[in-house]
Amino acid sequence: MAIELTDELFEEVIAYVREEDRSKAQPLIQEMYPADIAYLIEYLPRDQALFIFNLLNRETAVEVLSELQEESRSILLALFTPQQIVNRFIGEMDTDDAADLINEFPEPVRRQLIDAIYRSRSEDIQEVVSLLAYEEDQAGALMAKELVRINIDATVSECIDEVRAQNEDVESIYAVYVVDDQDRLVGLAPLQRLIVARPQRLLREILEEDVVSVTAKTPAEEAAQKMERYNLVALPVVDDQGVLIGRITIDDVVDYIREEADQDYQLASGISEDVAYNDAVWVLSRARLPWLLLGLLGGVISSRVIGLYEADLETYPQLAFFIPLVAAMGGNAGVQSSAIVVQSLANDTFRHGRLLQKLGKELMVALINGLLCSLVLLAYGLVAMASLPLSLTVGIALLTVIVLASLLGVSIPLLLNYFNIDPALATGPFITTTNDLIGLAVYFLVGRAVFDWMQ
Amino acid sequence: MAIELTDELFEEVIAYVREEDRSKAQPLIQEMYPADIAYLIEYLPRDQALFIFNLLNRETAVEVLSELQEESRSILLALFTPQQIVNRFIGEMDTDDAADLINEFPEPVRRQLIDAIYRSRSEDIQEVVSLLAYEEDQAGALMAKELVRINIDATVSECIDEVRAQNEDVESIYAVYVVDDQDRLVGLAPLQRLIVARPQRLLREILEEDVVSVTAKTPAEEAAQKMERYNLVALPVVDDQGVLIGRITIDDVVDYIREEADQDYQLASGISEDVAYNDAVWVLSRARLPWLLLGLLGGVISSRVIGLYEADLETYPQLAFFIPLVAAMGGNAGVQSSAIVVQSLANDTFRHGRLLQKLGKELMVALINGLLCSLVLLAYGLVAMASLPLSLTVGIALLTVIVLASLLGVSIPLLLNYFNIDPALATGPFITTTNDLIGLAVYFLVGRAVFDWMQ
Repeated sequence: MAIELTDELFEEVIAYVREEDRSKAQPLIQEMYPADIAYLIEYLPRDQALFIFNLLNRETAVEVLSELQEESRSILLALFTPQQIVNRFIGEMDTDDAADLINEFPEPVRRQLIDAIYRSRSEDIQEVVSLLAYEEDQAGALMAKELVRINIDATVSECIDEVRAQNEDVESIYAVYVVDDQDRLVGLAPLQRLIVARPQRLLREILEEDVVSVTAKTPAEEAAQKMERYNLVALPVVDDQGVLIGRITIDDVVDYIREEADQDYQLASGISEDVAYNDAVWVLSRARLPWLLLGLLGGVISSRVIGLYEADLETYPQLAFFIPLVAAMGGNAGVQSSAIVVQSLANDTFRHGRLLQKLGKELMVALINGLLCSLVLLAYGLVAMASLPLSLTVGIALLTVIVLASLLGVSIPLLLNYFNIDPALATGPFITTTNDLIGLAVYFLVGRAVFDWMQ
Repeated sequence: MAIELTDELFEEVIAYVREEDRSKAQPLIQEMYPADIAYLIEYLPRDQALFIFNLLNRETAVEVLSELQEESRSILLALFTPQQIVNRFIGEMDTDDAADLINEFPEPVRRQLIDAIYRSRSEDIQEVVSLLAYEEDQAGALMAKELVRINIDATVSECIDEVRAQNEDVESIYAVYVVDDQDRLVGLAPLQRLIVARPQRLLREILEEDVVSVTAKTPAEEAAQKMERYNLVALPVVDDQGVLIGRITIDDVVDYIREEADQDYQLASGISEDVAYNDAVWVLSRARLPWLLLGLLGGVISSRVIGLYEADLETYPQLAFFIPLVAAMGGNAGVQSSAIVVQSLANDTFRHGRLLQKLGKELMVALINGLLCSLVLLAYGLVAMASLPLSLTVGIALLTVIVLASLLGVSIPLLLNYFNIDPALATGPFITTTNDLIGLAVYFLVGRAVFDWMQ
């Protein structure tokens, strides 16, 4: 076990590392949690990060590698040959972390690593290769091969012996998985239940039979939802025949949930790659440029739309005053609706119920809010500007835009989801830009009609 | 144990419930997980939800209540007196769920519930009252009193006896918490370690000494981060003297992480209350109105800003063409920067490092992206519109706006965080609206200068 990284400890370690004082830095770092050492390595510049990594014993180095972000990990591993990476790190890692690590390398290195694994002739290491087959969004990608399995004919005492035998290899044993003679999952026995039961009892008398499980090809999202919904700390994974092939632990699912939430948040904010504040300037810049360029395109099209009404603007330049208002309100209303849909889809509260009912509800909400906003604006227009045609134009356009934008905000994510595209793509700048355009078109159409009619 | 809710089972149960066929619905529902029954209850209209709730035995009813959303729970509980609620439900719940439930009631009912708890004279129930003292954002609010504690002088075998004794009362025992004679937390022994150790060994020989713990007043966010970072399934909570008072389990933290992420996402999308798609129309409407009204205010101020330049617009109506572009780009750039800061703050990757360095980095990113966008637009302007002054105005304004908006996007959340206000408030419509205004002001100032100079 280890000690937590306080701010004081952090400053102290950093100071020793900067002085390259090996004898003072090493004992401190040895007592830290792998996650905290990883934090230090990511915080520090490259050469100081390497200095720290070289201070670690082999076991800690492996754990720290598992905790690092992909980018930092690849910097450290660039110093080793594929053979060394397999012997020193992959062989010592949990299978799920090892598979993640291998998958991060470009194809040629990946091939070399797999070759080195086969040369190693260790069955444990070769298990890792079977995990490489799964896509990032499948439950198999979250799964580790390490678990305690036992035949249903065993006694409680034999079961405990098996836990003892596996104790070194399997971290965090919460339950023993019970299989039949064909290795099919038939139940589980939580440690709590094993410890409480009389040793001579038969396992089949105390096991829990209805076990929640997934297949390796179940979407990762669904596996995470099951663990969340049923409050599980581990979820067994079976193949198509029900044979037990691995388990997913809650720590990996927590990371997965956090990453997915971060990604949705970033998409809603117009950031197209998973970035953090300590990434390099060009990474941050690249992640943000696509949506800015999309916004630029939207803006250019807007300028063409407004250009169509140049004559109207010359006659009534006041029409220009409310361009930002109408555009922004369409964007806001659209983002709101799409956000609720995206979230409902992510939390699976949307699975049942009819599409028309959902659209009808959105229409109601949009009508209520649109009417309220329109009335407020109409009143303002009449009082502050004393121009009936302008007030009417803005009021009618606003209601229309809020309703259209809301319906679009609901429909696009649903449509994307139907075609198995991440609905979060439809939020943020995408919906804002689309609605800006619709808003402008509506505004000027209404404006021309109203002004023509009243004057 | 129970069976999972498939789509077929869902349809079948719904059909029986609609027919009020008690004899067919009950056996199906009895086999379902509490979380799935809760899902059904939230999906169905009120009277059908009540029909289901009345089919449940007392134990299941308690578990279902713990899984329900606040709104549905209060509808069901409105049928019971405070005394009944305490005897039937609160007395049977885990202490953390019970405390959440009590806190959901309005003050007068809460008083009645607490009185009823004191009248019950059961020590177990009275433990709940001590949990009511914590704020929603404190670790204490996630904590339950149920855990297995044992004195450090015990043997492994005595420890296992204690687990056996507590087996019924404490769900999900993963570890035994070890305390000294003053009840202070001094270590823990995972079940895995207990089951593997020889029974006659002393607990002090096998315990893990450096335990990560929090106090009840630690921010809930920090407790969640610790469990995430150190891969914990349970986190002990101590008071200021180090006395063990409860533990937080990972299932509650997973829910907490999901809720916080949802809330940040909603704030970024301009939704001011925690809503889901199956909430009532007026709830959805109310959650969305505040930001729409803010957008409206922003739009009205925009109209005043543009109004200041009415004369310029009359002379150069083409200036109006790029109003949406400049406003939208300021909004987009600002939202991007603020999102990265908010996320870094939430994930604690932002704790160390200097403010000026962060702003400098943001400035670099903004300059790169701003310059690229400006050049693209300048080229477009020269080719498509053949108007040098207009192209120059838009180009210069765009660069300025992207830089200003980005710096503002970083500064506001940092400022809010410094004053302990949720930085997520600064994202979405707030930053968009502010940047719309700044963008317009910059655009027309630049425009007037450029046109005056060139013509």
